[in-house]
Amino acid sequence: MEAKRSLLAIFLLLSFLSISTAAPTRKTRTRKPCKSMVFYFHDIIYNGHNAKNATSAIVGSPQWGNKTILTGQNHFGDLVVFDDPITLDNNLHSKPVGRAQGFYIYDKKDIFTAWLGFSFVFNSTQHKGSINFAGADPLMNKTRDISVIGGTGDFFMARGVATLMTDAFEGEVYFRLRTDINLYECW
Amino acid sequence: MEAKRSLLAIFLLLSFLSISTAAPTRKTRTRKPCKSMVFYFHDIIYNGHNAKNATSAIVGSPQWGNKTILTGQNHFGDLVVFDDPITLDNNLHSKPVGRAQGFYIYDKKDIFTAWLGFSFVFNSTQHKGSINFAGADPLMNKTRDISVIGGTGDFFMARGVATLMTDAFEGEVYFRLRTDINLYECW
Amino acid sequence: MEAKRSLLAIFLLLSFLSISTAAPTRKTRTRKPCKSMVFYFHDIIYNGHNAKNATSAIVGSPQWGNKTILTGQNHFGDLVVFDDPITLDNNLHSKPVGRAQGFYIYDKKDIFTAWLGFSFVFNSTQHKGSINFAGADPLMNKTRDISVIGGTGDFFMARGVATLMTDAFEGEVYFRLRTDINLYECW
Repeated sequence: MEAKRSLLAIFLLLSFLSISTAAPTRKTRTRKPCKSMVFYFHDIIYNGHNAKNATSAIVGSPQWGNKTILTGQNHFGDLVVFDDPITLDNNLHSKPVGRAQGFYIYDKKDIFTAWLGFSFVFNSTQHKGSINFAGADPLMNKTRDISVIGGTGDFFMARGVATLMTDAFEGEVYFRLRTDINLYECW
Repeated sequence: MEAKRSLLAIFLLLSFLSISTAAPTRKTRTRKPCKSMVFYFHDIIYNGHNAKNATSAIVGSPQWGNKTILTGQNHFGDLVVFDDPITLDNNLHSKPVGRAQGFYIYDKKDIFTAWLGFSFVFNSTQHKGSINFAGADPLMNKTRDISVIGGTGDFFMARGVATLMTDAFEGEVYFRLRTDINLYECW
Repeated sequence: MEAKRSLLAIFLLLSFLSISTAAPTRKTRTRKPCKSMVFYFHDIIYNGHNAKNATSAIVGSPQWGNKTILTGQNHFGDLVVFDDPITLDNNLHSKPVGRAQGFYIYDKKDIFTAWLGFSFVFNSTQHKGSINFAGADPLMNKTRDISVIGGTGDFFMARGVATLMTDAFEGEVYFRLRTDINLYECW
């Protein structure tokens, strides 16, 4: 009798657990980040006169554009390649902790907007490995969310969301982006 | 005696459950989408004469190409940036519900094929946020699958597969893509 | 009495299991690949004289570059589109099992480094579907890890890491990459 009751309890428990584990990828996800980091990176676009300091350059442009001046119509069609220093604070001259490497393409005529594909590459005692990003960057918004699509090394298989904020800009040559990285998948 | 039997049952249950939860990311995945959506987007390539209506433009081309006419050899090497309206039906003049923004590069000489990196960007009462895509698009196939590599806002951390279908095209200036999005990871 | 003891055991078991299933996406991940594959791909860059054999071409370059010769400063700013044969061994003339299609952009002035966005596209009896990649490729390192950001067909929803190794190169026209793919998410 008691064994029966125990078995019934076990059966109920089993049923309950079957349900709760049936789709763990859907029900047990939490929006609490497993890792959060803040970085700044600094972009100095080549303009024909700053070859020494420039960290990026226009390498594609529409028919009406050129490769030393960002084109009209909100730079629509300009493709820029960059290798920008990453710092822990908002000072361009702080010791870089890594490099932001990749490209952006301005892709809208009536407002500044770009599409980004790039990586943060780290090789220091603090971080080794890379974080890969992709997404739309509507520059005029105070904050813009893009995707962390993968990672290697210390960031093996990472996924998450990065929030970009324009921290400063000077004309159309220098701009600084604050990047709040929140990973929701850590391995 | 009965307690022993119960404990044995519990032990067996525990073993069973340990196995079943050991690798949930492998065994419990289902190929049933957690979200399905259908959209159309409309691409009008700049050809030197349609600056007003064009939603995209050639911004890179091989040595033998130019930026107003898609080049020979199945457009191999042409890089196109776009900001295309997204609609819920196949009518170019329907009210857009978002923008498809990013780029494609024709990457094969002997057949039309492109590589795509782009986002669907929504900012309406219905959808807020973005879906990010990447993948190969062998245009001549009736259906082509690319990856949903991430998302933000309403599509936070989304992953899935998008099936592209050429719904219509006019010469080499206008084409319309139907996009069936199936998400298999929703948060 | 015995039933009570059993129920206590069940309660403890339940507590234990609740904890162990609470965050399966964090605690139960294993770094053992669910699928491993090795491929080679072969890139022959168009240089103005090899139109017949070339599998890739420069389609973007900085102001100081051109589209038939990779530019100085470690090719900084050169954007190359490719459609390269994939083979199972390191022989360019082996029967291709698929195509590597996409682009790379050299993105650093003081050393060879590129950013890659591409797909492996298979359509044979052995493999059907695609694997999508993105990431930084510091070419001078013996091994470089990039991300598998998605997949379709046989590689539906795949995620993982690919390790690139330069297997051979001839001048600045031909190079061969060994790619060790390790998937950690298989569906």
